Amino acid sequence: MKKAVILLSGGLDSTTTLAIAQKEGFTLYGLTFRYGQRHQFEIAASQKIAQVYNLADHIITEINLRAFGGSALTDDIDVPKDRSVNTMKESIPITYVPARNTIFLSFTLAWAEVLNTRHIFLGINAMDYSGYPDCRPEYIQSFETMANLATKAGTEGNQPITIHTPLISMTKGDIIKKGLALGVDYSLTRSCYDPDDEGTACGRCDSCRLRQKGFREAGTTDPINYSVLP
Amino acid sequence: MKKAVILLSGGLDSTTTLAIAQKEGFTLYGLTFRYGQRHQFEIAASQKIAQVYNLADHIITEINLRAFGGSALTDDIDVPKDRSVNTMKESIPITYVPARNTIFLSFTLAWAEVLNTRHIFLGINAMDYSGYPDCRPEYIQSFETMANLATKAGTEGNQPITIHTPLISMTKGDIIKKGLALGVDYSLTRSCYDPDDEGTACGRCDSCRLRQKGFREAGTTDPINYSVLP
Repeated sequence: MKKAVILLSGGLDSTTTLAIAQKEGFTLYGLTFRYGQRHQFEIAASQKIAQVYNLADHIITEINLRAFGGSALTDDIDVPKDRSVNTMKESIPITYVPARNTIFLSFTLAWAEVLNTRHIFLGINAMDYSGYPDCRPEYIQSFETMANLATKAGTEGNQPITIHTPLISMTKGDIIKKGLALGVDYSLTRSCYDPDDEGTACGRCDSCRLRQKGFREAGTTDPINYSVLP
Repeated sequence: MKKAVILLSGGLDSTTTLAIAQKEGFTLYGLTFRYGQRHQFEIAASQKIAQVYNLADHIITEINLRAFGGSALTDDIDVPKDRSVNTMKESIPITYVPARNTIFLSFTLAWAEVLNTRHIFLGINAMDYSGYPDCRPEYIQSFETMANLATKAGTEGNQPITIHTPLISMTKGDIIKKGLALGVDYSLTRSCYDPDDEGTACGRCDSCRLRQKGFREAGTTDPINYSVLP
């Protein structure tokens, strides 16, 4: 039985990654962060997804990135709206949360080491994304190198840590096609940076626009509701 | 004014590092973790030290490493006692907390980025230590490489992140001599892994034994109390 730790945000990418990892035969341990984000809808989504996929364990852990601020997702800064998906990745937007993926991956590393497994799954994507530096392949490779120097597992040499990022080179459309082929129910997932009080997606932030582009490319419609349709 | 983030554990090494960084002219932002450790005495020590050194800010943040366990410092496992300081670093002991330094450094990286500084100070030591993999120079170098790929600061190229580890190649005796020369009051610091209910150091864990070795080498006596003297 191959065990793996997976970062589960409740979004489209991490849920597709979960379906891929499960299809590959991994027994999955899901990790979700309550990190001071603006809303809790994605955490509720992650819980539902963990249930539906019958994960071996699901830890929701709290860290306070609001103590540092510096991002529209963890501070009182407006989320940018209506940006073009074609130019999004040209600069790093204010929704970038400083060092967030590094913090998240560090915790998966701790859990993987305790579970005595070398496998970590992460649903990041460097094609249709917001230009965050910690979503690029060279970042993941350097994290892996560091992780193997940091840990008992890596140091003792028999179990080098591997960060699996099956979506990293896929377009949003291909991710959705892949997920649909694996039976993913995307109505369970939440992607919006700035939903309304009922959790309805805004339709205008980077994350909504990339998601809608993906469904268009996949030739199907998104099952979730939006306040504004593109 | 050069700003730096410093990891402050309340122990001898981080306090000496603080004195060195302040002497070098840095304005310091201290970060301390309540991570599920067995006792809270080191956190109280860090608060006192932050006051005495008049830090620009001191954040004590909570993360729950007990959710993962796997270490004598975060689980119900006995702390090893009476190990020889000469053979300590030959294997990784049960007091190793999986990925702890990686998690801690990830948060300093987030704060450094928000503060718009490239400087992080860390009091790790690879001479007189317990054999933890995440205390070695090659680990720090790889973290630095990763950090520069992970962040906006590193990516935009004008502000590469630097992890300063002034103690990494010093013996415990040299660290204490250096600290005393800088006026460090070591009675403020706490190092023991397993103090009694009043916070008195056990005198027998790896950390106590390394600390006592250091004071002997420095030709002076430790101002803190021990339950058992070597």
